[in-house]
Amino acid sequence: MGKNIVEKILENHLLSGSITPNSEIGIKIDQTLTQDATGTMAYLQFEAMDVPQVKTELSVSYVDHNTLQTGFENADDHKYLQTVAAKHGVKFSKPGNGICHQVHLERFGKPGKTLLGSDSHTPTGGGIGMMAMGAGGLDVAVAMAGGPFYLNMPKVVNVILKGKLQPWVSAKDIILEVLKRLSVKGGVGRVIEYSGPGVKTLSVPERATITNMGAELGATTSIFPSDEVTKEFLKAQNRESDWTELQADDNATYDEVVEIDLDALAPMVAKPHSPDAVATVEEVGKIKVDQVAIGSCTNSSYSDLMRVAKVLKGKTVHPEVSLVIAPGSKQVFSMLAENGALADMIAAGARILESACGPCIGMGQSPSTNAVSVRTFNRNFPGRSGTKDAQVYLASPEVAAATALEGVLTDPRDISVSAVVEMPIQFKIDDSMVIEPNDNPEAVEIVRGPNIQPLPVNEALPASLSGKALLKLEDNITTDHIMPAGAKILPLRSNIPAISQYVFSSVDEQFSARAKENDGGFIVGGHNYGQGSSREHAALAPMYLGIKAVIVKSFARIHKANLINFGILPLTFVDEGDYDKINQDNTLNIDNIVAQLDNSTLTVTTDKGETFQVAHELSSRQKDIIKAGGLLNYTKKQNQ
Amino acid sequence: MGKNIVEKILENHLLSGSITPNSEIGIKIDQTLTQDATGTMAYLQFEAMDVPQVKTELSVSYVDHNTLQTGFENADDHKYLQTVAAKHGVKFSKPGNGICHQVHLERFGKPGKTLLGSDSHTPTGGGIGMMAMGAGGLDVAVAMAGGPFYLNMPKVVNVILKGKLQPWVSAKDIILEVLKRLSVKGGVGRVIEYSGPGVKTLSVPERATITNMGAELGATTSIFPSDEVTKEFLKAQNRESDWTELQADDNATYDEVVEIDLDALAPMVAKPHSPDAVATVEEVGKIKVDQVAIGSCTNSSYSDLMRVAKVLKGKTVHPEVSLVIAPGSKQVFSMLAENGALADMIAAGARILESACGPCIGMGQSPSTNAVSVRTFNRNFPGRSGTKDAQVYLASPEVAAATALEGVLTDPRDISVSAVVEMPIQFKIDDSMVIEPNDNPEAVEIVRGPNIQPLPVNEALPASLSGKALLKLEDNITTDHIMPAGAKILPLRSNIPAISQYVFSSVDEQFSARAKENDGGFIVGGHNYGQGSSREHAALAPMYLGIKAVIVKSFARIHKANLINFGILPLTFVDEGDYDKINQDNTLNIDNIVAQLDNSTLTVTTDKGETFQVAHELSSRQKDIIKAGGLLNYTKKQNQ
Repeated sequence: MGKNIVEKILENHLLSGSITPNSEIGIKIDQTLTQDATGTMAYLQFEAMDVPQVKTELSVSYVDHNTLQTGFENADDHKYLQTVAAKHGVKFSKPGNGICHQVHLERFGKPGKTLLGSDSHTPTGGGIGMMAMGAGGLDVAVAMAGGPFYLNMPKVVNVILKGKLQPWVSAKDIILEVLKRLSVKGGVGRVIEYSGPGVKTLSVPERATITNMGAELGATTSIFPSDEVTKEFLKAQNRESDWTELQADDNATYDEVVEIDLDALAPMVAKPHSPDAVATVEEVGKIKVDQVAIGSCTNSSYSDLMRVAKVLKGKTVHPEVSLVIAPGSKQVFSMLAENGALADMIAAGARILESACGPCIGMGQSPSTNAVSVRTFNRNFPGRSGTKDAQVYLASPEVAAATALEGVLTDPRDISVSAVVEMPIQFKIDDSMVIEPNDNPEAVEIVRGPNIQPLPVNEALPASLSGKALLKLEDNITTDHIMPAGAKILPLRSNIPAISQYVFSSVDEQFSARAKENDGGFIVGGHNYGQGSSREHAALAPMYLGIKAVIVKSFARIHKANLINFGILPLTFVDEGDYDKINQDNTLNIDNIVAQLDNSTLTVTTDKGETFQVAHELSSRQKDIIKAGGLLNYTKKQNQ
Repeated sequence: MGKNIVEKILENHLLSGSITPNSEIGIKIDQTLTQDATGTMAYLQFEAMDVPQVKTELSVSYVDHNTLQTGFENADDHKYLQTVAAKHGVKFSKPGNGICHQVHLERFGKPGKTLLGSDSHTPTGGGIGMMAMGAGGLDVAVAMAGGPFYLNMPKVVNVILKGKLQPWVSAKDIILEVLKRLSVKGGVGRVIEYSGPGVKTLSVPERATITNMGAELGATTSIFPSDEVTKEFLKAQNRESDWTELQADDNATYDEVVEIDLDALAPMVAKPHSPDAVATVEEVGKIKVDQVAIGSCTNSSYSDLMRVAKVLKGKTVHPEVSLVIAPGSKQVFSMLAENGALADMIAAGARILESACGPCIGMGQSPSTNAVSVRTFNRNFPGRSGTKDAQVYLASPEVAAATALEGVLTDPRDISVSAVVEMPIQFKIDDSMVIEPNDNPEAVEIVRGPNIQPLPVNEALPASLSGKALLKLEDNITTDHIMPAGAKILPLRSNIPAISQYVFSSVDEQFSARAKENDGGFIVGGHNYGQGSSREHAALAPMYLGIKAVIVKSFARIHKANLINFGILPLTFVDEGDYDKINQDNTLNIDNIVAQLDNSTLTVTTDKGETFQVAHELSSRQKDIIKAGGLLNYTKKQNQ
């Protein structure tokens, strides 16, 4: 039987389990990446494993999140990351070198390889034919130490692209169409594999836009074939030797199939406050816009920004619009500076930001109260911009640039300039901001500032769990709800006692205090709990507050894995109707928990006398992790 | 008798008083500027005066401080500033257009005119032959409303420049030499007027570096003649018609004279933590440096950054240094982007920041714990960088760039590239980010976000003052001590109840709470109290906390004026030894205060039975302002 790309890569990397949907597999990880907001914890965990040098083919530590540096904390983190990388065989990408996913695609990604990153948009690497997945920092630390990465074998969805995009319709519109059709839950437990005649019409950065924002489907990852287009891209990066062809067999089979006719697509936006609230620009109409933000790991490639420069050239940004542009990497920034495109942007009135994630993670450029902000980013969850009541629309760079000029949401087909940007035959290669690990690791002294606090460690699972339902939540709770990011809170990522005060702070300011008062307890939620980023702080900080179990209708993949990693029981209602049996502040009990874990379901009783069943869906390995009180305890036990 | 430049301009603008040292004069203000951190208050105060359109020749509202936008507050302020400017006849410079002083010099400054700005570095305009002074926002509001600006007629110090700077020695080194000789108190009550054969060897931006950092002398302002060099600069800005010649008469007299031999100067730095702790780079030695920051209103002109680009071209920033560069204006940024200099900086590994004040005001790029940071800025007060224990050195762009490459403090004469940068014959002119006021002011609706709180107003002076000495301080207390800035606190500048919680927070975290508990009280200090910025929040927020009087050995000019403007009595010890008679928490009394103000001194008694004399040095106009409870009350009374 023919194989699809996902099966080919996973078989090549399989260490345990079998390639059948929903069974747990362990795979070998070739490359890892971290960013600074998740990386400090990942390296603290790596250090706790006592492995002198990373065992991957390549590990890179990027700094792209906490680059505003509004206090000593961020620069301290950067110094820790630089020194810990130098000591343990990790390349360090200095702040200013760019966004991890953009830089990794340009300089390090290889078709057919596995990449594990402590960032949910790691699937960007799928644009170059990698099996690239986001995970918690602890999983990445384990992979750096040479351990397998475990996941449930996903279903493979084949998205067949037909035809060719019309002028001014872009890769962003393809992924918005996929989100419209599948929704933010549609990818859960699935990998999206692209194929069809439309693939060859898309450049690697365009493919990367699609696989990047595939994260918003809840998918494990997304992947494109590696073909002649991939080869040309790698050649232009002086990396032709990194190329291998990677295609699905002709008779490959898939679990599901979706067809998209590229010719039929129009410029689209995702409306507030969900990436799947998709409509065409025409449907939304010419609403007044206050801010336009261009950049992020989704849309800050050379060709993205060259198209923006072409739209802006010789024009002036609307007087009532603030336009900010952050190039995705030093490579992009350099090339735009050399060829005059950056000068065109500045002349038009763009505010140029450092090459980093910036406003996409609420790190600056928060819009004004009630503002409409059009952004080329991947998420528009409420409050993520740093302004609670801002209305964020997600769009392509073309839509964003046209909108910046007009001051109202604008279909770029309404403005008359040429959209054609050729991919460069040769990119500008300069890796001088990537610091190689030290040849003499013993000589490296790791620098730890006062904000870098030791990792809290959980205790082994007690005989029974009892505690209050501290918070009862709706569907689609994101990791931004659980552990907010933004300019105020992100700098505390290396300091769990400090950051834990902000758990659920945007939902319920008293949560953290209540959790401490009650010595922890339970969280109750709806469907797709924990969607969004890979931040393990959304498990680690609740663990620090004493949360023992989370009972919901369904989980997002990475967050569930993070809960297990930190010894928090992830439970789902067997009968969704039982959600109604719990009120906030009810006391819940699960007795004889170790024995009950041998069954597929456990019994929960409430202080109102209600009883219901919850499922755990844990593999035996995961059960052992939970019993040990998390993956670090489990790993230490294994090594004894 | 011949006249100096200061006398010529002041006589031309004199509305009251006479040109004799230390007597109060009122002068006509031709131009005003505001920046966003002081501007919101200035325009709220202007609005309170019910004047429909500004009465100056030119008023410009800049946004350059709160540009990180880590919450809705900043963007709300920007929107308020843009709409209030449109309504009242003020030009609005959009965020991204650059630093107020740099842009004003390029596009608006005129020799012989008076400029009042709500920023202490307004003297930058002295580089183009303006009488340019910093003041509190309320003074600027009064000037916009057509009222006179009052000051004590300063002494005029003549600094005679001889010879010519050696290669790699720069304008920054001249002002560092002046600071070394005169100290941070040396300019109090004085204007520094430059003359001599060295003047013609300095470009307008070089002169502006010198007048800019003259603020650190405590001087009222600094000024250069307007000559052929000035004319060429204005011509290159398409503003030749704005030029007039301005020279001191041959037989002009001065109160003091200082001579500097430019040939003898070497590259210098101001060491932590004062701008007058000056030593040569050679004397300090090759100390390890963690961060280099280039930009600010002192050193971010086209030629400054071109010299930096020349040093960096083809080189790589040291792996352990973070180099950040913020161009001073859109004009500078555009020109660097067009001529390839920006590409050279990016290629070398510089982090490029938006054109704004940025790290100079602690708005981002805080160094790591204990870091050494070399900055081309004007102030290195403790904590101003955002990192309490950082060691900040102030230096020229040349020293900074060489240091960034070497990783240790470096004399640029030790590196072998050409330093020569020709001034452009034509600057790139594009004022599209300066929004003209609305032709139809009635149609403009002013937008006020929830962070913009109404202006608190003081009460009339009571019959007697009694209260605790809430805080006793040393010499050289800066406005950064009184009302800290930085990324956390600056966004609250439009919200006095919120920002008042941070008064003296870096000195004594309990101050604000203690002041409220005690219903206000007194502050006691040493010499040069209130040096530094023009922020009126250093008077307004203490007023809100109930501070009634400040008793010190001597005041910095702008801060003293701000205290009067908000109805706080500025008092000085007649006998400095009496400073020792007060301990913190002693209760102080001043009885029959209105009657006592008629004398030049007042009697203070303490609860320990001590008695001593304090002087007020108030003009009769200022006494009336104090009695009314501040300038706004006084102005309203005048208009009744």
